[in-house]
Amino acid sequence: MPTVATTASTAAMTANRSQKSLPIPLVSAYWEAMVTLADVQAARERLRGIAHVTPVLTSRTLDGMVGLKVFCKMESFQRGGAFKFRGAYNAMAQLSPDQRTRGVLTYSSGNHAAALALAGSLFACPVTVVMPSDAPAVKKAATEGYGGEVVLYDRAEQSREALGRRLAEEKGLTVIPPYDHPHIVAGAGTTAMELLESCPDLDAVVVPCGGGGLLGGCSLTAKALRPGIKVYGVEPEAGDDAARSMASGKLETVDNPQTIADGARTPSLSELTFGLAQKHVDGIVTVSDAELLQATRFMWERMKCVVEPTGVLGLAAVMTGKLATSSQRVGVVVSGGNADVKALSALW
Amino acid sequence: MPTVATTASTAAMTANRSQKSLPIPLVSAYWEAMVTLADVQAARERLRGIAHVTPVLTSRTLDGMVGLKVFCKMESFQRGGAFKFRGAYNAMAQLSPDQRTRGVLTYSSGNHAAALALAGSLFACPVTVVMPSDAPAVKKAATEGYGGEVVLYDRAEQSREALGRRLAEEKGLTVIPPYDHPHIVAGAGTTAMELLESCPDLDAVVVPCGGGGLLGGCSLTAKALRPGIKVYGVEPEAGDDAARSMASGKLETVDNPQTIADGARTPSLSELTFGLAQKHVDGIVTVSDAELLQATRFMWERMKCVVEPTGVLGLAAVMTGKLATSSQRVGVVVSGGNADVKALSALW
Repeated sequence: MPTVATTASTAAMTANRSQKSLPIPLVSAYWEAMVTLADVQAARERLRGIAHVTPVLTSRTLDGMVGLKVFCKMESFQRGGAFKFRGAYNAMAQLSPDQRTRGVLTYSSGNHAAALALAGSLFACPVTVVMPSDAPAVKKAATEGYGGEVVLYDRAEQSREALGRRLAEEKGLTVIPPYDHPHIVAGAGTTAMELLESCPDLDAVVVPCGGGGLLGGCSLTAKALRPGIKVYGVEPEAGDDAARSMASGKLETVDNPQTIADGARTPSLSELTFGLAQKHVDGIVTVSDAELLQATRFMWERMKCVVEPTGVLGLAAVMTGKLATSSQRVGVVVSGGNADVKALSALW
Repeated sequence: MPTVATTASTAAMTANRSQKSLPIPLVSAYWEAMVTLADVQAARERLRGIAHVTPVLTSRTLDGMVGLKVFCKMESFQRGGAFKFRGAYNAMAQLSPDQRTRGVLTYSSGNHAAALALAGSLFACPVTVVMPSDAPAVKKAATEGYGGEVVLYDRAEQSREALGRRLAEEKGLTVIPPYDHPHIVAGAGTTAMELLESCPDLDAVVVPCGGGGLLGGCSLTAKALRPGIKVYGVEPEAGDDAARSMASGKLETVDNPQTIADGARTPSLSELTFGLAQKHVDGIVTVSDAELLQATRFMWERMKCVVEPTGVLGLAAVMTGKLATSSQRVGVVVSGGNADVKALSALW
């Protein structure tokens, strides 16, 4: 069952905007100016020699199965095991020396927390992470392994935003959120920039979508570098807020979706990432957990790469044929590899 | 417990040879002429555009743990999932058209069988594989998946060599053994050639050792391209025939060793591969199954690469500090990635 929500064409949106001043396109126009190709290019320079230029892998077996040429941009090999390091480092690099001395704070139990802790270790910047007390031990260990300080909270009793704000105010910390920040989005966009440098003649790029930072950054970059290209986002069926938001034209939310794609359990896009998606994304596809497991297994067993379920959202969409696209040369961002090997293989 | 068997230096061996005409160095001198750098260079040309030039991966975490700069040549990403394709293709490319039309035969339940079947699919050359009836279903499936024909035999009742010879004679098939063949060894040697092209200033190369084809090919290549370099072989503790052979100066065997390194359960080196090892290898190290599991897990969890236990023999030797070497820049050949993910992660 393909679930594809397609945005109105840019021309139609522009016409709408000038005729009726609808609130949504205006919001979109405001946010889309927050991150530009120049910001992504500047992020690329900041990351040079520090982030990995991750490899692009191909598989004859995969191409044969799906009838396309597929180019996988493997952010699982990024420092910290996910694309998140790009945004975290790009954001921290733009703080003042004083801000870095005082430290930063984020709320995330996943890859952004570890990436920010890793960036902090390079800048000698203290990193505090607000994490639910039931977060996986392995994620807590990864953050602490890079020198981050973890503050646990009780999901039922406290709001992470409120706790984070209080801590940040008390200690003078700068908050660096997981996706709702232009510097995070610009950093994430360098993924698409590298992909298009390796494979300049792609027809389409397919990107995992949780909070929309990676999708927003990659879509604006891809469209700026190669205007005719198609960009698709992919999210888990259980967390289909982005698909619904694109369909309704306003920010839709989802409450604590249950999916093995733990990096895409975000309640909604942000205004920033939604604005970018409305402008640059051609459609959102959803995939089931079973399809994610299958794609994960294919990557491990056939392509010999350890990837996490969230990381293969794009690959799963391609493998299931859910992308209603005439594209022949498709770039797929594989966003991370921080999987619990034992737990995951037990699910197969 | 480091277990290192060091060969006599080449100078000492040459002196011995001229003084006493000892049989072992003469055998070595005979076999070492069977494969030369020119053969490896010719294999490289045959493989160009057909085999993958596999990536060399590094890890700051690994370097920090072992106090060395380690460069992992990832043959897990080779076609067929292991270095074996290099030798299989190189051997098949040198058959006559008539030989290729009639077909080839090998006996192997592992990566060589699948690699030969893959090469056969490229040359339209029928491939028959004699495999024990208790071989893992996944290995049989891989060989058949590439179009190979599998002939099962009962380990207790039949000898695979006798069965193979009979079939080969009946059908006019050419036998391509898993390692005891100059074309197989020359193909395997291209691994070291690529590694030294990527990393010309290595002090040492560490190579898994089963039948010794990879070790023989890589050691002759490395020493020819960079005379001062050290080359070490690594085998499982339970299958320490190569270490004992190097110590005693004659071919020692081991009977059906029990180890998770299923690619190194060979009964002995061949005269060819032993001759090359005597000439070019500086020492053989052994590692335990527990150490192999640890190295496998590190590769999966930290370097995000699916590798098989046999593949990480060299990495395990480096990680345990068993290499008694003053080398600082060490190349490690990671020879394959055809692991049973579920079974292996259950062992952790």
